Amino acid sequence: VARVREQPLRADAARNRRALLDAATRVFGERGIEAPLDDIARSASVGNATLYRHFPTRCDLVGAVFAERMRDAVEAVERGLEEPDPWIGFRDYVVGLCRMQAEDVGLADVFISSVDAVGGELQELRARAYAGFTELAERAKRAGALRQDFSPDDMLVLLTANAGVTTRAGADARAESERLVSVFLDGLRAGPT
Amino acid sequence: VARVREQPLRADAARNRRALLDAATRVFGERGIEAPLDDIARSASVGNATLYRHFPTRCDLVGAVFAERMRDAVEAVERGLEEPDPWIGFRDYVVGLCRMQAEDVGLADVFISSVDAVGGELQELRARAYAGFTELAERAKRAGALRQDFSPDDMLVLLTANAGVTTRAGADARAESERLVSVFLDGLRAGPT
Repeated sequence: VARVREQPLRADAARNRRALLDAATRVFGERGIEAPLDDIARSASVGNATLYRHFPTRCDLVGAVFAERMRDAVEAVERGLEEPDPWIGFRDYVVGLCRMQAEDVGLADVFISSVDAVGGELQELRARAYAGFTELAERAKRAGALRQDFSPDDMLVLLTANAGVTTRAGADARAESERLVSVFLDGLRAGPT
Repeated sequence: VARVREQPLRADAARNRRALLDAATRVFGERGIEAPLDDIARSASVGNATLYRHFPTRCDLVGAVFAERMRDAVEAVERGLEEPDPWIGFRDYVVGLCRMQAEDVGLADVFISSVDAVGGELQELRARAYAGFTELAERAKRAGALRQDFSPDDMLVLLTANAGVTTRAGADARAESERLVSVFLDGLRAGPT
């Protein structure tokens, strides 16, 4: 009997957790990872106590939200590695990651922040995305499509630059971000030497 | 007799004004144009009253400081137009402007801010720098060195991106800024079509 009673509670808890993650994704995405937790609870239509029961600290909530986004990044890297044309695989990943970042102020923080600032699963996923990206870049170099002096640090330069554009530029932020990424990629493309 | 007495006062006033401009250049450059004016007076070794006598409002001080930097930009554009090789003239100006910006947080604000946010001489100088840059770009396009779809707005994209790198990146900010500018310029260079 106890188990039967537990089921609806669990379903309720799962629903609240989902609502909190969706609200936090939206609020962190708009206002960065320092946005007030109260606003997230309100936006999820749950009380603060429910929020704290699911995510005792801000770090837990940030970790859960961005682990989801980072899983998207890992999937995007894997799609890139399956693309037959090494340049297209590399380019599409760079474009997609910068687009994800442009839509989500918080994601920029997570990608750029030092290793210590993110923990657990998020850190592990970020390491997987990084390793996959390194392989994408090596493959494009071997094919002669990517300049030989490319370093994965260049991707951090682009992400930092893109964060500047997406947070500083006004209404044109998306168009400016796309132009930045497009010109930067043209600069990374190996010339016909 | 009145004129003789006036001379030393004027020299003193000129010295204070110079000290205030130097201090404001340093403080705005490190901390942006919203830095406390008290700190600028202290750094110039003058009292607040002296600061307010020379520059009644923050806007006056910002205008005076950045008019000097903008004059440097106008001179750099003119040097670029004198360079026989249109690509080198264009490239050197872009590199120089981004370097000025990397060294001066406040300058980024002034370049990127809307027309209304800066007034008087500063606005006029910025318009001259902009017009000169447009001519630099047209010249490089005519020579077939700059991609035909280049627009002066691309320079704003680069400056905004560079502001992101110089304010977000840590100790490596200068190296990251140089890499950003270098790859972006390679992307702007017209291919051998």
